[in-house]
Amino acid sequence: MPDINGFVRGVLAGERAVLSRAITLVESTRADHRQQAQQMLVELLPHGGGAHRVGITGVPGVGKSTFIDMLGTRLTEAGHKVAVLAVDPSSSRTGGSILGDKTRMAKLAVDRNAFIRPSPTSGTLGGVARATRETIVLMEAAGYDIVLVETVGVGQSEITVAGMVDCFLFLTLARTGDQLQGIKKGVLELADVVAVNKADGEHEQEARRAARELSGAMRLLRSGDELWTPPVLTCSGLTGAGLGELWDEVGRHHRTLDEAGELAAKRRQQQVDWTWAMVRDTLMTRLRDDAEVRSVAPELEQDVRDGRLTPTLAAERILKAFGVR
Amino acid sequence: MPDINGFVRGVLAGERAVLSRAITLVESTRADHRQQAQQMLVELLPHGGGAHRVGITGVPGVGKSTFIDMLGTRLTEAGHKVAVLAVDPSSSRTGGSILGDKTRMAKLAVDRNAFIRPSPTSGTLGGVARATRETIVLMEAAGYDIVLVETVGVGQSEITVAGMVDCFLFLTLARTGDQLQGIKKGVLELADVVAVNKADGEHEQEARRAARELSGAMRLLRSGDELWTPPVLTCSGLTGAGLGELWDEVGRHHRTLDEAGELAAKRRQQQVDWTWAMVRDTLMTRLRDDAEVRSVAPELEQDVRDGRLTPTLAAERILKAFGVR
Repeated sequence: MPDINGFVRGVLAGERAVLSRAITLVESTRADHRQQAQQMLVELLPHGGGAHRVGITGVPGVGKSTFIDMLGTRLTEAGHKVAVLAVDPSSSRTGGSILGDKTRMAKLAVDRNAFIRPSPTSGTLGGVARATRETIVLMEAAGYDIVLVETVGVGQSEITVAGMVDCFLFLTLARTGDQLQGIKKGVLELADVVAVNKADGEHEQEARRAARELSGAMRLLRSGDELWTPPVLTCSGLTGAGLGELWDEVGRHHRTLDEAGELAAKRRQQQVDWTWAMVRDTLMTRLRDDAEVRSVAPELEQDVRDGRLTPTLAAERILKAFGVR
Repeated sequence: MPDINGFVRGVLAGERAVLSRAITLVESTRADHRQQAQQMLVELLPHGGGAHRVGITGVPGVGKSTFIDMLGTRLTEAGHKVAVLAVDPSSSRTGGSILGDKTRMAKLAVDRNAFIRPSPTSGTLGGVARATRETIVLMEAAGYDIVLVETVGVGQSEITVAGMVDCFLFLTLARTGDQLQGIKKGVLELADVVAVNKADGEHEQEARRAARELSGAMRLLRSGDELWTPPVLTCSGLTGAGLGELWDEVGRHHRTLDEAGELAAKRRQQQVDWTWAMVRDTLMTRLRDDAEVRSVAPELEQDVRDGRLTPTLAAERILKAFGVR
């Protein structure tokens, strides 16, 4: 059994080896590990909350690793301690994590003021999200003042990451007009800052045009009475061009929310929402895994599909099988 | 106790008085009524499914009533039997339904081939949606071949209505540029057909411009590999201009889906999704209403808000209070 007090002390002292083991404990799905992890987290909670939490999304190929490597290095050079986490629910299926290969972030990987942690591979998005949320607390308790959470944007993962960060950054490529169709539904509505990456060399003009077009689309999507209007910028993770302006916007977003009292409110609401999301997910998982439910559900579903049974009756029978009165 | 067989016969014969009472039975939340309603629905299910189901949304003031009155009248003139239902979860709070005042649809209200039913006022969106879904089956069994489901678009109601119809129509006004900001997030992603209403007199040019702009926004939002690209048209519910073209597009949407085998698949999936949504909603309602949960939840929420407790531990305690192991 791990020494919880030793973990707490080591994390607070920012010891990298202890931090790694503490994260592994948080990621574990074993019942006894989960209990120990919660014990540790309750001790560390009062020391959490100190980081600026930024989510970063974008399709594979948009250059997220190069971008984070360059941005993170600039931030550590400016005196920050930077944690890079990932939410990739597909990593357990593909066998590799988007951050599994640290050489993807060659500079940050050897930066002693940076800490890179690949996505947990516990399978479900709910499990991955829980571990990542709890890892944020560990990183903050260990003194990291900037936490970057990367996601590949598979399924619901963008919504999940947007629900655990202060600012959600969407990276895209210089596509215009019909090509913009490829942008995933909903992501523009989640984004706080949008950046067209790879705006370097011959692609710079193209990136500027795409940014203008996206800016128009953003105006259509966001209602005018919001506190914050998401800016659309251009940048290059390769040359570093535009990264300063981009981080300025992320900082301006933080200040705008903070001054309006909305940052603290947003974080508190995220915690409560997350609690109920876990209640709902756990309850539905228990129901779907229930032996009685499993024995009746396939036939009920087929009856509903074929129009022999109303959804209301099918739902009642599923609930009855689960033992809910 | 109502005579279920009498109800079934009356509905199948298209008797308006019986139909009204059958809908009232379906809308009831009383346990014995619900049981009788389900008994009736199981009998009627094999006679359902025959209508073209079309959802219609748009903000108050867009002219939905005038539009539905004119469109419905044209459809009955063409030999159709038209049902008009509504999903307005706010009607139970405001005390009135969006369709409560039948004079809002003066022509259809006295049309013997039309049947107008205000939104049920059972309170929750889940309850209203259940009753409306089941009323669709009744209308189909009674021989109505077109079912229009109106919604005011409060909260999640648009997503709910989109999940019970074949085609989702979004009505908007001739706003351009920044004014388009008022369009609710997500509705453009749900829409199968978009129409700029009130395109009459001096507003016609303005409506055309707005339609072109919206058409551009739609292209940005929808991925190119979909079976159907939502068209953006102009129309006038007042003069009837453009209604023919609009209904042609609704029909073309229906044929496109049908020929690809996706219409039947979409309906089957809607039924199965609806079943599990009801299971989830009922389970969460039971949990939130549970006496034990109610006695512990407020304090747990506050502890999570104040950072004294992790969401994971709070969720575990809520589930324990509910008696889920």
